Amino acid sequence: MSAFELHPRLAAGGHPLGMLENCQLLLKDNAHFAWFILVPEVDVEELHELSADEYARIGKAVRELSGFVSRHFAPDKVNVAAIGNQVRQMHVHVVGRWTSDPAWPGVVWASEARQPYAPEEVARIVALVAGELGCGASRWGPA
Amino acid sequence: MSAFELHPRLAAGGHPLGMLENCQLLLKDNAHFAWFILVPEVDVEELHELSADEYARIGKAVRELSGFVSRHFAPDKVNVAAIGNQVRQMHVHVVGRWTSDPAWPGVVWASEARQPYAPEEVARIVALVAGELGCGASRWGPA
Repeated sequence: MSAFELHPRLAAGGHPLGMLENCQLLLKDNAHFAWFILVPEVDVEELHELSADEYARIGKAVRELSGFVSRHFAPDKVNVAAIGNQVRQMHVHVVGRWTSDPAWPGVVWASEARQPYAPEEVARIVALVAGELGCGASRWGPA
Repeated sequence: MSAFELHPRLAAGGHPLGMLENCQLLLKDNAHFAWFILVPEVDVEELHELSADEYARIGKAVRELSGFVSRHFAPDKVNVAAIGNQVRQMHVHVVGRWTSDPAWPGVVWASEARQPYAPEEVARIVALVAGELGCGASRWGPA
């Protein structure tokens, strides 16, 4: 059992989907976008502070997740970003974007558009992620 | 000689700093931020479309650049992002941010704040990059 604790703001805004490599995987509760967040279980804030091995593992998770989003959500573009100005705990956004989405062509972090998921849509994505990415059931229980 | 051509919008907005791994390195002409852009010389738009080797090389360049920005610009946070909604040619932003900068805590891509560099400041950064990251003189000539 890790002593790692997910930042409360990340926990509050997302549905837990399990682990991918050394990262907690979250679905941001905003159906306007295909917005996933990887939270590496590390204790540094910046990518360059990671060991080469940790960096490579997180990169692998980002690559797999980006491919998954591309295959299953048919986005026009995938946006990948580690920002962390407001929540310093390291987290990487992988966001499928559509030219028809309410923030296009701007970035999601500057958008006020919110659309919570219906529970059955979350369940569908949980099952998809489990099947495709091999994420086990979350150890934090259901959202 | 590569047939790769830098997108005109990227070329117009940045000072060329040379090559880092398989990426053209640019300094965005905006002194409000420590804003660098890596443009991998590849022909795909999405990170997950890269070969594993290309992906690893670009990841290495991002890591080195992020460390460089951290060491030399004393940012409060480094933002790393591949967005590409407006310019589809793959490019990765590595941006040193300060809590005192005009976009903080928002993202730079949503900010209108612009402050072109003084030529001597560009020259200082060119020399710093050449010394620290081993980027050769640009093959496109001076900005």
